[in-house]
Amino acid sequence: MDTDAHDARPVIALAMGDPAGISPELTAKAVALDDVRAKARLIVVGDRRVFDEGARIAGRKPEVKTVVPDASLEPGDDVFVDLGHLDPASAARGHASERGGQFALANYRYALTLARDGRADAVCFTPFNKKAMRLARPGYDDEIAFSAEVVGLKTDASEFNVLDKLWNARVTSHISLADVPSRLTRERVHRALTLTDACMRAAGFQVPRIAVAGLNPHAGDGGNFGREEIDVIAPAVEAGRRDGIAVEGPFPADTVFLRAKSGMFDAVLTMYHDQGQIAMKLMGFDRGVTLLGGFPFPICTPAHGTAYDIAGQGIASVGATRAALLLAAEMAIRRRRSTSSGAAKGLSPQSRLGGGMA
Amino acid sequence: MDTDAHDARPVIALAMGDPAGISPELTAKAVALDDVRAKARLIVVGDRRVFDEGARIAGRKPEVKTVVPDASLEPGDDVFVDLGHLDPASAARGHASERGGQFALANYRYALTLARDGRADAVCFTPFNKKAMRLARPGYDDEIAFSAEVVGLKTDASEFNVLDKLWNARVTSHISLADVPSRLTRERVHRALTLTDACMRAAGFQVPRIAVAGLNPHAGDGGNFGREEIDVIAPAVEAGRRDGIAVEGPFPADTVFLRAKSGMFDAVLTMYHDQGQIAMKLMGFDRGVTLLGGFPFPICTPAHGTAYDIAGQGIASVGATRAALLLAAEMAIRRRRSTSSGAAKGLSPQSRLGGGMA
Repeated sequence: MDTDAHDARPVIALAMGDPAGISPELTAKAVALDDVRAKARLIVVGDRRVFDEGARIAGRKPEVKTVVPDASLEPGDDVFVDLGHLDPASAARGHASERGGQFALANYRYALTLARDGRADAVCFTPFNKKAMRLARPGYDDEIAFSAEVVGLKTDASEFNVLDKLWNARVTSHISLADVPSRLTRERVHRALTLTDACMRAAGFQVPRIAVAGLNPHAGDGGNFGREEIDVIAPAVEAGRRDGIAVEGPFPADTVFLRAKSGMFDAVLTMYHDQGQIAMKLMGFDRGVTLLGGFPFPICTPAHGTAYDIAGQGIASVGATRAALLLAAEMAIRRRRSTSSGAAKGLSPQSRLGGGMA
Repeated sequence: MDTDAHDARPVIALAMGDPAGISPELTAKAVALDDVRAKARLIVVGDRRVFDEGARIAGRKPEVKTVVPDASLEPGDDVFVDLGHLDPASAARGHASERGGQFALANYRYALTLARDGRADAVCFTPFNKKAMRLARPGYDDEIAFSAEVVGLKTDASEFNVLDKLWNARVTSHISLADVPSRLTRERVHRALTLTDACMRAAGFQVPRIAVAGLNPHAGDGGNFGREEIDVIAPAVEAGRRDGIAVEGPFPADTVFLRAKSGMFDAVLTMYHDQGQIAMKLMGFDRGVTLLGGFPFPICTPAHGTAYDIAGQGIASVGATRAALLLAAEMAIRRRRSTSSGAAKGLSPQSRLGGGMA
């Protein structure tokens, strides 16, 4: 490998997720992927014993040097930051536990800190188990809230779902359906649209084509079944268009994904959680990537869960984890290139490592 | 064809839909289908000139004798009730018009009346255009309201969507999303469940397996994102189970269709319009059938629309119309068999005409 290009690789801090599921074997498989290694340098964060057990299950022998926490992380090969906090014999496979949640949380916090402090360009993590996270940290809400706390983020952040080349973003997420209509304001829809456009440009879309879903059946049917399309969503779309965003809508929610799937749009902005998730999961989103957008660096994870039912068999597909790492690498390299520090590091067009999304 | 079996065929009144779209050619194609003719006797309702134009476009020469309205409709071959109310030259193809709406409404009203008066066992119609219907009848709401008015129905009716062997029913439909939570009561969910079970049994399912969707993201996540699952939906599911209905749930809306699609359930009862429609349309519901359930006779129509963009080319697929006619025939023959009049008409197991859904 060309040394200059190699040095130009972005650094991804990869946190091991829940130890009772497929996270250990996925982490080991991901580290062994040639295309991932070509595009990024990895700092894996976890317990080396759990990782080695995962490698054994996965039938891989990834080359990754163990370092102690707070070691200086000079450019070079992949490293494993061994927090030494979990003996794999003490965590039963296939069960959510406080210990497992503590393991995943500590790894994730460490990885976020690396990126926050400029020692990594992006963060990825293998699947968490929400129950274990809550056992470890009562009141644990979701990755966005936790990450914002660690990073000290005060501005908007949002979850994006990426399946192949189709993105889905949402204006509201984990709130009751009854609370959705009152939460939809022109400003919130417009902000979500702006964040979607910005994140997609950061991922390589020149001019992302965004479709916005309505809230009501038939997008309100001209006001017959609700006025949010007329009073809130259409004005926000219009404001986005004035900003130069390639946005259309609101479209009826039950056909907007058919339009996007046919290639008419790169993204769908939905108004509430299930509006997007019903569609994305039917289209195979478990193969996809969840991106936390709005942070100073990309945070990506496979969309699927911990798969306790198949943990330890070595059969878990690394596809979504691979896609998460490649998306994070692509966004990190573009981010570097758009900054003067990127230029200072000698990033040339030839060193472009990602395939590009657009 | 065996004469007894032939005589035992149920009678379907088939109303021609919007004349500016693909309805005329679909009607002509459907009447020419051998499997439809084997299973049902058709009384087509429309204007013969519009039908003949549709047949010319479709390249079919269906054998169907024209009769005047109010003719005695003795058992025998298919007939065409010519209302003589639309010269095809006066209705521009590809445009919604008051005249087109009046044509479809008159045909549909006539077909409903035939079934209401016991002269037909079921009603089908080719696609309507909602704009044309409203031009013809300001305040036209939907087919359920219109049909209930014509038939004098005072009890519950609901729209079912049927794609291959998967059914979707919903508790609420054409109302704003903001109105959904307050409309969900234990009684309404239980009534919708009961109606779903009854309609599916009428269509040949021995014990339909019904999955019920939650309302909130992650089905409320144990009450974290709304309590409707706990306070309303789960008790209604429990009540249905006590009635002997094979029902489970509430399930998160974003995975319930994956469960059903995998063969675990025959139907999904959703809480609001888009929850089901997003999934069904992505799975190809345009190939499916819309059934109006709760009426004294089955009413079926293809799920797709008038397709103004391809009208007149003869390329419209008759698949969904065929499926609508076969489902109506199946339900009508089962309804006949379950009544003493059916027995009096000599319906034997050998004369069973439908393939059965279960």
